Amino acid sequence: MRKFILISSICAFVFSGVNAQVNDSIIFKRIADNILVNGRAYSNLEFLCKKVGPRLSGSPQMLRAEKETARMLREMGADTVFLQETKVPNWVRGDKETAYLLMPGGKKRNLNICALGNSVGTGRNGLLTGAVLVHSYEEMDALGRKGLQGKIVYLDVRLDPTILNPDKAYGQSSHFRWNGASRAAKYGAVAFIIRSLASNTDDYPHTGGMGYNDSFPKIPALAISTRDGDFLAASLAGNKQLKLFVRNTSFTHPDAIGHNVIAEIRGSEFPNEIITVGGHLDSWDLAEGAQDDGAGCVQSMELLRVFRQLNIKPKRTIRIVLFTDEENRGSGGMAYAAFAKAERKDHLFALESDAGGFTNRGFDFVITEERLAKLRSWLPLFIPYGIYTFDHGEAGADVDYLRPMGITLSELLPDQQRYFDYHHTAQDTFEAVSKRELELGAVAMAQLVYMIDKYGL
Amino acid sequence: MRKFILISSICAFVFSGVNAQVNDSIIFKRIADNILVNGRAYSNLEFLCKKVGPRLSGSPQMLRAEKETARMLREMGADTVFLQETKVPNWVRGDKETAYLLMPGGKKRNLNICALGNSVGTGRNGLLTGAVLVHSYEEMDALGRKGLQGKIVYLDVRLDPTILNPDKAYGQSSHFRWNGASRAAKYGAVAFIIRSLASNTDDYPHTGGMGYNDSFPKIPALAISTRDGDFLAASLAGNKQLKLFVRNTSFTHPDAIGHNVIAEIRGSEFPNEIITVGGHLDSWDLAEGAQDDGAGCVQSMELLRVFRQLNIKPKRTIRIVLFTDEENRGSGGMAYAAFAKAERKDHLFALESDAGGFTNRGFDFVITEERLAKLRSWLPLFIPYGIYTFDHGEAGADVDYLRPMGITLSELLPDQQRYFDYHHTAQDTFEAVSKRELELGAVAMAQLVYMIDKYGL
Repeated sequence: MRKFILISSICAFVFSGVNAQVNDSIIFKRIADNILVNGRAYSNLEFLCKKVGPRLSGSPQMLRAEKETARMLREMGADTVFLQETKVPNWVRGDKETAYLLMPGGKKRNLNICALGNSVGTGRNGLLTGAVLVHSYEEMDALGRKGLQGKIVYLDVRLDPTILNPDKAYGQSSHFRWNGASRAAKYGAVAFIIRSLASNTDDYPHTGGMGYNDSFPKIPALAISTRDGDFLAASLAGNKQLKLFVRNTSFTHPDAIGHNVIAEIRGSEFPNEIITVGGHLDSWDLAEGAQDDGAGCVQSMELLRVFRQLNIKPKRTIRIVLFTDEENRGSGGMAYAAFAKAERKDHLFALESDAGGFTNRGFDFVITEERLAKLRSWLPLFIPYGIYTFDHGEAGADVDYLRPMGITLSELLPDQQRYFDYHHTAQDTFEAVSKRELELGAVAMAQLVYMIDKYGL
Repeated sequence: MRKFILISSICAFVFSGVNAQVNDSIIFKRIADNILVNGRAYSNLEFLCKKVGPRLSGSPQMLRAEKETARMLREMGADTVFLQETKVPNWVRGDKETAYLLMPGGKKRNLNICALGNSVGTGRNGLLTGAVLVHSYEEMDALGRKGLQGKIVYLDVRLDPTILNPDKAYGQSSHFRWNGASRAAKYGAVAFIIRSLASNTDDYPHTGGMGYNDSFPKIPALAISTRDGDFLAASLAGNKQLKLFVRNTSFTHPDAIGHNVIAEIRGSEFPNEIITVGGHLDSWDLAEGAQDDGAGCVQSMELLRVFRQLNIKPKRTIRIVLFTDEENRGSGGMAYAAFAKAERKDHLFALESDAGGFTNRGFDFVITEERLAKLRSWLPLFIPYGIYTFDHGEAGADVDYLRPMGITLSELLPDQQRYFDYHHTAQDTFEAVSKRELELGAVAMAQLVYMIDKYGL
């Protein structure tokens, strides 16, 4: 394949100049060697995960992470580092959630469960009532108020394993997590539980954002671990009279103040042309936010570090943005987009890494055909570093708010087969990240930004 | 990129028939769906790892694994299952190894260490003597007998992190593990320690095969964990008078009897044309041999299962071979090659999976240019399943013994960035394998064999 692609790309080589490509391949190697030998991404991630910890929107750790990453960026030699203030949600989980199934005979079978982000609580006494198993909204509609009134609704949905990219399967199912509670509340349900949106079977519930439709009562919304979810489904299918207890004390405080952390290397020729690179600094509260998205933050910072250390002087201004509150409401991305629109500079390109610090596959772009063709002429340079595809696709969630400005957007596409084992769970820890995989993502991001800065789009 | 490749491949499509490719893509999807939804690879790997355990050549677990996998293959519906007997090495580790550095003041600092496979022991009392730090054979040569006589030699070598594929970096360094002890014994050293051949830093020593040059005394050969190796190197660099204690009681018994496990689906049109697919059933003794190479075994078996379950009737005979003793001496691969040569059938193709059950990248081949071009015309079918490259490269170690027969050889190429974190350590456990990554390897192997069976080479 490598040879096959190379042959197909000879024309591209000839047009863009063989010497330029040879020189670029030397810079590519210097970037890779520096990051793989002297990189700071892994140790910075360890700091974020172990010294700061979970960085939930509105939490003290969120503020601590802002301060610490601003310090790191200053130490890496950024020309400017500043914090951009914005209001962020301040939802708190409260006590560790408890749930059990009351078995025939009165025995309790505990279940691993967690509240979804933004969920209301059950009250301090919890809820003990009948539970109903459903597999779709259609089933809820068919059961209606007669079937769901006063009940806890358990929605047993799964990521489709036959979809090769788990992120696509997740995309097809995540609306159940977001909207399911109100769909059940519409028929009088008193709580909503969803099977964790996961690609494996284990004991860790997966949290994640949810929202309420104001037309219906706000009821507690929770996720159950996949293994316990399977147990619950089998139990409820076999006995329709079983009762379920759930208790969570989560609560939404008034908005807090958070910040995007922004650092720049000023462009030498076109300082008013902006290339944005970032990840989101907030995380869910159950673990350390290593894959989601400490990885993307430290990879973005690494780009600034390696440019400085190799004395690469970009023509355009390279701006690293560590977004606040991607998980709860997207206020960091919205605030940056408003800032970008207001500053009246020329935004050329915005790249985000928010799909895990796993081994590289490619980049997705929101881009014109013409520009994509230009990028693809560079692919032979990237293939030795494990980047096989430049394709139309999604942008990172935070930079996607820049879409109305009509600029080219992108997201690093790592391999995601393991991502939904860890995503939004207590297992998303530093230990789940491979040093080399994390670093190779940073390498590819720095290489791509180097090329776009040098040759434009 | 996906589109780019598709355009480049239209010629290939036209020549080989668009309809055939469409039909093949349907079979590809059926293979993938079946393995991803109803696959047995993961549960079979769990059985091998948790119910059987480490499967060192000559051990009772090796025999147990042969019996259990033969059973599985029969249950999957193989036409024939048989065991092919061969002599295998019977090296045993003995007691858990101990080592410490005697610090100034007499304090002992314990070190994580393990004997290399085939190493002799230190004797029951261990060895306490001066230690010498070297970084190369040249340094050993320069120190000579004067510097090494009576000493424990610590060879501090590292996998080159700037080599993108860790397997290539490993290939450049593994001869130090194999030959280092005799190189030190040549100058009168009494024991040899190598820094573990690993791509990460942790507390787990990596074992692996070694051999002796009969011209020199056989001295104990051990590996130290990377973290303790770094400590040892720093200590020895700072104080040349430090003493080191090592003790291992490993021992080589006379050869034992082991078996290759062989199962066939008989070809419907050309039963005497053989396609071999396998992995190696033996493992090192420190852990469960999940990535190395339980993964390759269960992936190979899965191919037989999915062909049966989807009622794919191959024209040629598909032969699954689970090789014994890849790790110590290669006697399984040699025995199968002798058998293949003697049976006077037409061996068309042999594929091995022995590079870990990680997410797919491609296949390497030992192949003619003409045949590789034919395979590459099929690539568009494989790309949706994460296979981006068909390239010249290495064959799996066991099928490589078939090379003198001049047949086409191959190895599944998963991503290897994590492989040398686990390789030959106590961490190579079932838990280190991702279900989906494992299954996707089986999918690609079944798809490739389906095509080669159908269209020949």
